[in-house]
Amino acid sequence: MGLFSKDIKTMDDLFVHTLRDIYYAEQQILKALPKMIGKATNPMLKQGFEQHLRETEGHVQRVEQVFEMHGVEAKGVNCPAIDGIIEEANEIAGEVEDRQVLDAALIAAAQAVEHYEMTRYGTLIAWAKELGRPDCASVLEQNLEEEKATDKKLTQLAESRVNLQAAQ
Amino acid sequence: MGLFSKDIKTMDDLFVHTLRDIYYAEQQILKALPKMIGKATNPMLKQGFEQHLRETEGHVQRVEQVFEMHGVEAKGVNCPAIDGIIEEANEIAGEVEDRQVLDAALIAAAQAVEHYEMTRYGTLIAWAKELGRPDCASVLEQNLEEEKATDKKLTQLAESRVNLQAAQ
Repeated sequence: MGLFSKDIKTMDDLFVHTLRDIYYAEQQILKALPKMIGKATNPMLKQGFEQHLRETEGHVQRVEQVFEMHGVEAKGVNCPAIDGIIEEANEIAGEVEDRQVLDAALIAAAQAVEHYEMTRYGTLIAWAKELGRPDCASVLEQNLEEEKATDKKLTQLAESRVNLQAAQ
Repeated sequence: MGLFSKDIKTMDDLFVHTLRDIYYAEQQILKALPKMIGKATNPMLKQGFEQHLRETEGHVQRVEQVFEMHGVEAKGVNCPAIDGIIEEANEIAGEVEDRQVLDAALIAAAQAVEHYEMTRYGTLIAWAKELGRPDCASVLEQNLEEEKATDKKLTQLAESRVNLQAAQ
């Protein structure tokens, strides 16, 4: 999460730090998605990534809204976790020539991204409630629900990809 | 995932590559858990990490079993995702002095690890079935179920930590 040592003293510090972590992560995802759209072959996968790109723009705005509600500056902190997840996605996308296999790899990479976001939003929502800020929790809940829905859609796409192949 | 370009040509290659990714990840988690046990204050959290350390040893063995069933060498490949997730866990653990806040940070870090494993095992199980290997899927399913159970326990611990604080 990349702060200098002993900067985090309270649950409020930890909440703000993790909000900055997901803020950075959402911005990195915004940068990564156009490449994934460019690589995807299955039209439904391509459309799914395009829809998620628009949603991710909304997620960034909601996180900014929570920064404002909480009275702290909207800024990111380095997040080696999302950097690593995206690095893996880029590597695998560069390694696969077969389009069907590439789509399968892209779906798996996108699900790893979704799971990272789901765990961070889940934690942030719990901490917001603990800090007496159900209003912040409620805004973050909207992002969590969209991430969960995207993950489900990706699972369905993975299954439909298999069914399509079986039918060929 | 760290292979040289164009090494992955088929779904089988992708399956084996991702198996090597989670094999490396489980081994890194084995190395990281003793540090987390050392840092945790809440006795239930400490015990939970100790139990998960024993489970993780079992996960490594099950992944080795799948390598053997599939007739490929058991070896890991670099996994920048888990490296990043563990790097974040170490950073945050080094930053927090207050023990209650540190426990909260450790639970969040452990849940990020669990979610990474859950997404990878979910993908591997789907691909094993696609490749006509329900036997491999069944072994991997046991790891997935234990990861899900650990994630749930961590959520309960996060809640009990809050309730304990509220009662003080």
